[in-house]
Amino acid sequence: MIAKEVNPTCSPLGPDNKLILAPGILAGTISPCSQRVSVGGKSPLTGGIKEANAGGTSGQKMGRLGLAAIVLEGKPEPGRLYTLHVSREGAFLEGAGDLKGAGNYKVAETLRAKYGRHVGVISIGPAGEMLMSAATVAMTDQEGIPARHAARGGLGAVMGSKGIKAIVIDDTGMPKIVPAKDQEVFKKITKAFAAVILERPRVKHRLHKFGTAGLISFTNEVNSLPTRNFSRGQFEKVEHISGEAVVALIDARGGQRGHSCYQGCIVRCSNKFMDAEGKHLTSSFEYETIAMLGSNLDIYDLDAIARMDRLCDDYGVDTIEIGCAMGVAMEANILPFGDAARAIETLHQVGKGTVLGRVIGNGAVTTGRVFGVERVPAIKGQGLPAWDPRTALATGVTFVTSPQGADHTAGRLQGVMEFDRLKPGTIAQLSKEMQIRACFYDTVGLCHFADGTPESAEWLVKLLSAFYGERLSVDYGMETGQKVLETELNFNLAAGITEADDRLPEFMLKEPLPPTNGTFSVAREEIQEAFAGLKENKKS
Amino acid sequence: MIAKEVNPTCSPLGPDNKLILAPGILAGTISPCSQRVSVGGKSPLTGGIKEANAGGTSGQKMGRLGLAAIVLEGKPEPGRLYTLHVSREGAFLEGAGDLKGAGNYKVAETLRAKYGRHVGVISIGPAGEMLMSAATVAMTDQEGIPARHAARGGLGAVMGSKGIKAIVIDDTGMPKIVPAKDQEVFKKITKAFAAVILERPRVKHRLHKFGTAGLISFTNEVNSLPTRNFSRGQFEKVEHISGEAVVALIDARGGQRGHSCYQGCIVRCSNKFMDAEGKHLTSSFEYETIAMLGSNLDIYDLDAIARMDRLCDDYGVDTIEIGCAMGVAMEANILPFGDAARAIETLHQVGKGTVLGRVIGNGAVTTGRVFGVERVPAIKGQGLPAWDPRTALATGVTFVTSPQGADHTAGRLQGVMEFDRLKPGTIAQLSKEMQIRACFYDTVGLCHFADGTPESAEWLVKLLSAFYGERLSVDYGMETGQKVLETELNFNLAAGITEADDRLPEFMLKEPLPPTNGTFSVAREEIQEAFAGLKENKKS
Repeated sequence: MIAKEVNPTCSPLGPDNKLILAPGILAGTISPCSQRVSVGGKSPLTGGIKEANAGGTSGQKMGRLGLAAIVLEGKPEPGRLYTLHVSREGAFLEGAGDLKGAGNYKVAETLRAKYGRHVGVISIGPAGEMLMSAATVAMTDQEGIPARHAARGGLGAVMGSKGIKAIVIDDTGMPKIVPAKDQEVFKKITKAFAAVILERPRVKHRLHKFGTAGLISFTNEVNSLPTRNFSRGQFEKVEHISGEAVVALIDARGGQRGHSCYQGCIVRCSNKFMDAEGKHLTSSFEYETIAMLGSNLDIYDLDAIARMDRLCDDYGVDTIEIGCAMGVAMEANILPFGDAARAIETLHQVGKGTVLGRVIGNGAVTTGRVFGVERVPAIKGQGLPAWDPRTALATGVTFVTSPQGADHTAGRLQGVMEFDRLKPGTIAQLSKEMQIRACFYDTVGLCHFADGTPESAEWLVKLLSAFYGERLSVDYGMETGQKVLETELNFNLAAGITEADDRLPEFMLKEPLPPTNGTFSVAREEIQEAFAGLKENKKS
Repeated sequence: MIAKEVNPTCSPLGPDNKLILAPGILAGTISPCSQRVSVGGKSPLTGGIKEANAGGTSGQKMGRLGLAAIVLEGKPEPGRLYTLHVSREGAFLEGAGDLKGAGNYKVAETLRAKYGRHVGVISIGPAGEMLMSAATVAMTDQEGIPARHAARGGLGAVMGSKGIKAIVIDDTGMPKIVPAKDQEVFKKITKAFAAVILERPRVKHRLHKFGTAGLISFTNEVNSLPTRNFSRGQFEKVEHISGEAVVALIDARGGQRGHSCYQGCIVRCSNKFMDAEGKHLTSSFEYETIAMLGSNLDIYDLDAIARMDRLCDDYGVDTIEIGCAMGVAMEANILPFGDAARAIETLHQVGKGTVLGRVIGNGAVTTGRVFGVERVPAIKGQGLPAWDPRTALATGVTFVTSPQGADHTAGRLQGVMEFDRLKPGTIAQLSKEMQIRACFYDTVGLCHFADGTPESAEWLVKLLSAFYGERLSVDYGMETGQKVLETELNFNLAAGITEADDRLPEFMLKEPLPPTNGTFSVAREEIQEAFAGLKENKKS
């Protein structure tokens, strides 16, 4: 819809952009791990097309309501702020002046008190209202915590530009389950696919137990954990922020792990992290957050990092982008590396919208520009996630080539294979396949953690066949994914994003990554060759 | 040289960019008005190739020294700062730690005291040291005032990134005049060309008398004078900032007008503006400055505007870019429109490098991003000069298409014809021709004020023929200009700047310009057609 209806050269925060919130095709069904909501628009951060998705309960509820998408378009008078209430009665705008400037926690609480604890709340914090390019779209989880964010690319600012503070998804009166055309077959495939997912070592041994935080020790070991603004791949204090350390605190303080952000998720990577007094601090304390606000800032106090996570969730900013921006600000000596108190204070400035806060809240590139920093970890305007491309080569190719900018959800290679030095000549091709697969998963609404083998796409095709009641070709998944990727690349080309933008930040090409001195050794020609097919299609 | 030697995708402030200072071909000769210095590099503001030129005495001195160019490349250790001394003895680097953070006025004074009042000084202020994207390269005039700036595109930041605080051009011991191969013919043509220039009504009736400030009343009349962040084309208080008002104050306070910024300039548009006590406030108080820091900010106190001009010269920032950025900040209510004291205080923040100062000092686009402003007058990252494209149509096409970003020196249509509603279908072609001519003038080092008719290019070709002692074709000028323009477009294409970037800011397309409700009525197709030839060459 974005590609069809939005002028690629329009101003992302102007009336011609649209914000589209779409659950996956299988939303509301019993299919496992497939209730995510995609948020799309032209990104104010990258200037290109953007898809960012999140879990939480709203996708399922939109599915139950039979909604293919919610589309926000146009632009209200300046200063107007609304809540959009969506139920089987229809969609209604209500004034939201009382929520002006409110954090996502307060918004979720207020709207759940008003409309019932069962509703899903999709909202923006003050960052979205202030049109910051790192602003997120927050979604409530099963406990009503606004901890699930379509975080990347500043789509919260697009929502802010539309004057929509929150969307309430109220599925009252709708059947709990959206039936497939062939529900019996659908059930059987669901059961079999679920068993496969649960048997995956990653799910079994890590995600259930540690959530994504379990990745910290791993990426550190393979020298890919961003440390002090991507100047190292290993963090000296890693044991203080590892999955084990997180879990120990969760368990000691009466937190919770292994829970799911929506009904029917069997991966259950989510966790609840309590403060020293046993009070809820943040929900789902994730790998990316711990790395980008932890090691990347030389901070190893988990309580401080969790506090920052909560503030990011509340103010509505992307922890990855903020981690990158804050690392750049530290590089510029605006605040010192390792100073958790100053980092927290700076985050409050983001929420308040001081000038410094607005700089940081507009992401790494703006921060680098303002403070004259050369070492800015960003591609196509978007800050890098916590996978240093100088060791995570295939994921690095995704960062470089993805129409989304540097994005680990656009096609990340899983596991040790990535770091075992992939065979040269195969890496870019691998990235391309991962990207196509990722596009397909996002279309269906599948959580990437339910992936793990190329067969996942085939399982999904089987589910879709039963859902539609028609036999789809086994290639349907990859074909769909490729079509999506091409559409995105096309949009970007028309928006002025070209192959010249397919580059790592210069410092990453010039500095090998200590301590192993990894370099991004994938030849530019290899990348060009692998993606040539897509490019040709683009030009035709 | 930039196009040949600089990687178009390099980081503008990294070691791979180069800063090139080149006088025109005729530097040091007796040719009239042709002693300007071109400064070039990849722009940190636009991300494209950049040529910005300035008057002052250094071009002539470089010509006398027989220098084709001074090339700064590589990058020193962080924190190092040097002065480069260039004379017939060679080029030598000296530590400039004592000048760290100094304004251009102090730098010029210090170095002229040290090396003699006769030297030319090319320098950066604190803005250049802080790598701000609006930072200029300042050049001293005949009185040693650093009032001449290669201002656009942030080339001062590139100089700062090379650790060069100042370049001293010392022509001691060199003959005063660089002879042409055929000096007798050269003399004759010079005399004839000079007579033609002096007869031009623009020179005779405006530039001698009012300097460029004389344009204020004119652009106001034709509804093209930027007022309150380009929201109007006429300024209610225009009589307070007109050329007549400027001249009245200059005369009353013992200032000076009609003087020249280098020996041999016969246009003599320069002026000296004194404060109420008769003390020197600024030299050459120009149209662009008065418009962008005056009407565009709703400020009509000439003393305040002149004070801001001096501060911009001293801190080393572009008055156009700062005027645009400050207008955007006013639009965001960071400071009020019309508040001269606050505007001056904000400029001091630029010099000091406070966070707000750094935001403003990085130009209009960064300011708009940080404060979430939609109405940002910029193209390809560069702020618009004081010619509203909704009435200045041909100049508007130049803003849109020039590889320099919005730039009035890249090909501006002179005089009333522009506003007399040009014939549709001819406007884009006109812009293209002006751009080609401008490229040729900049190559030769000609001041654009010596232009005025298409024959100027032919006069220059005659001069060059005598200079080289070989008969150049009459088309040589336009051929050279076209080659330069194509080279620039090529560089930009490789840098990722495409036709998608050839656009007015969205608000200018959506809002007719009060009070006459002018619109940028040039069809996109007309522009594409006119520039198609260049584009085809680019792709081959």
